[in-house]
Amino acid sequence: MRGNKVLDDIKNYEAGLPIELVVREFGIDTKDVVKLASNENPKGTNPNVVKAIIDGANNAHLYPDDSFYELKEALSDKYLVSSKNIIIGAGSDQVLEFISRAFLSEDSKVLMTKVTFAMYEIYAKQMGATIIRTPSYEHKVDEFIASYKKHNPKIVYICTPNNPTGDAISRVDVLKIINAIDKETLVVVDGAYMEYASAKDEKYKIEPKDLIGFSNVIYLGTFSKAYGLGGMRVGYGIANLDLINLISKLRPPFNITTLSLLSAIEALKDEEFVKDSIEIHKNQLKRYEIFAKENKLKYIDSYTNFITYIFDDNIDSTQISNSLLKRGVIIRNLASYGMNAVRITVGTEKQNNRLFEVLIEELSNAK
Amino acid sequence: MRGNKVLDDIKNYEAGLPIELVVREFGIDTKDVVKLASNENPKGTNPNVVKAIIDGANNAHLYPDDSFYELKEALSDKYLVSSKNIIIGAGSDQVLEFISRAFLSEDSKVLMTKVTFAMYEIYAKQMGATIIRTPSYEHKVDEFIASYKKHNPKIVYICTPNNPTGDAISRVDVLKIINAIDKETLVVVDGAYMEYASAKDEKYKIEPKDLIGFSNVIYLGTFSKAYGLGGMRVGYGIANLDLINLISKLRPPFNITTLSLLSAIEALKDEEFVKDSIEIHKNQLKRYEIFAKENKLKYIDSYTNFITYIFDDNIDSTQISNSLLKRGVIIRNLASYGMNAVRITVGTEKQNNRLFEVLIEELSNAK
Repeated sequence: MRGNKVLDDIKNYEAGLPIELVVREFGIDTKDVVKLASNENPKGTNPNVVKAIIDGANNAHLYPDDSFYELKEALSDKYLVSSKNIIIGAGSDQVLEFISRAFLSEDSKVLMTKVTFAMYEIYAKQMGATIIRTPSYEHKVDEFIASYKKHNPKIVYICTPNNPTGDAISRVDVLKIINAIDKETLVVVDGAYMEYASAKDEKYKIEPKDLIGFSNVIYLGTFSKAYGLGGMRVGYGIANLDLINLISKLRPPFNITTLSLLSAIEALKDEEFVKDSIEIHKNQLKRYEIFAKENKLKYIDSYTNFITYIFDDNIDSTQISNSLLKRGVIIRNLASYGMNAVRITVGTEKQNNRLFEVLIEELSNAK
Repeated sequence: MRGNKVLDDIKNYEAGLPIELVVREFGIDTKDVVKLASNENPKGTNPNVVKAIIDGANNAHLYPDDSFYELKEALSDKYLVSSKNIIIGAGSDQVLEFISRAFLSEDSKVLMTKVTFAMYEIYAKQMGATIIRTPSYEHKVDEFIASYKKHNPKIVYICTPNNPTGDAISRVDVLKIINAIDKETLVVVDGAYMEYASAKDEKYKIEPKDLIGFSNVIYLGTFSKAYGLGGMRVGYGIANLDLINLISKLRPPFNITTLSLLSAIEALKDEEFVKDSIEIHKNQLKRYEIFAKENKLKYIDSYTNFITYIFDDNIDSTQISNSLLKRGVIIRNLASYGMNAVRITVGTEKQNNRLFEVLIEELSNAK
């Protein structure tokens, strides 16, 4: 059978390779695999959440409260917005899907930076929309405004801090972009890694309440990174009521699991875990910066829980990533993003030791 | 902002009310609420699955293996089809969404019975498709073929056994419908409750391998009912390779959780749990049939884990459902499906005792 025409041009998202695959393909022991490819929290799952999951495991046969009442109330308290302004998704990813399906068509354009989160393009293409990119991978105000004026996109994506590059755009600059944009264009401010940027430099901190006054802006957040719940698939969108009501029409019932719901509720009770995660991360991130300098690698100053190393022409990111993979170290090659670069999640001290050990050898082999 | 035109006409799915809401609204103790509204397995979560969740809780921060390798291998062994013929969804629900988005447009029609699973309509309307229904709530071969010839729908939905009515259509009759339909129309055979129908009468048993030879047929199954994992959101579609590859373009990465994946894998190792669930169910279902006869209620012979009582004009299903709700007993009113009827999940012996006790009183009050 033939599907809708828009599907002809769609590639699937290239997920970070799972540990299981490396074990199967290369015969490496699970315990010897170091996965630094999916920006998972190296601090692991919050012990309070682990306890909540254990206590709730008996209820896996029961559907969750589809109103997500308690979770929305907790997010409402955290962000000082009404619970009615919140939509819950299976990861902020799913909210991106709702947005794309609510606003895009084959006549639409969407605007994003040269290198940013791959799902913006994938969801937009599922609707047949045309992708417009700014010249730089960074979010530059002038480039965004010029490109907006030229192309009149239906959606503008601002990923800050940006994935997979790690740079960020300041609150002031985000507001400049928003203010230059007509109310019929939706601005998505994707703060999946915002906790890391906020902790590093206050001027990059963007909160939902900064944006909720705009009828055409939605803020996205997630439990997958700083809250350490990547495997549970919980994210959210925060926006004015009309926008939330509109995209809620595309939310399927029970779109997060019963255990995901209680995990997110529990995680929100423990901001100390997030602070600790970020503190540990900061120290380990410094090691990656020092490693880069010592080995004459370019890197992008990181406002996230990963770092991006950019290689000179004498090193090939695909070759390096594959060499590491065969030795059980999984990182993300950015060749498919058009960059001769790799994105490495800043892991635990031990994981990072192993990464440095293997990478230094493979860099030397490659030259 | 204005969304795509197709959204104007969309209502959200009316989920079975959660226990939490009844506790909040009516001040009833959680332990006193009896929820028989969402066809959850009264046997609870499989203890082996509970153990697997407890053992895996520490990995909630890690994304699942997005290839779902082990789960697909297990389903492949169970159904004697290749793992390449399988797509995993967040419930079979999500596979319905993929199908709708892959094949429908504002020019499409979809065909289903008068009363069937609400998400067929909701997902089809999200694409702007026109809904065509057969005159009967049962799946009647002649009605399907006549309506197919008249309307030339893009998708034909066969929900067997049917939700929310509980009746089923035989394998022979399903094949009659399939054989009457052109290869450019997709036939969806939704077997969410198939384990119950198969156990009751072999002639209603439909397996993926019966259907996989047809290029335009997909079978859907779920872990939510007989396997007791409603809260974990895992379902699947099984079809020929081209069809699976096509709808896989719409599958988002990590669309089930890490704990959902291990739960489903564990659940598949224990078919005894499913057999026991069905055995307990059979005995309790008999009590619902006897209750109906004693109280002169019409019911639909059930091939599922619920039963549908149809009321005469002197009883109003909305009034009865609301009266029960205020007393902490949640059942599903079928008024929104155009039936003066209620759907009741066959619960545990104790839950059913309470249902009978309250229902008999409210029926007598209503007269």
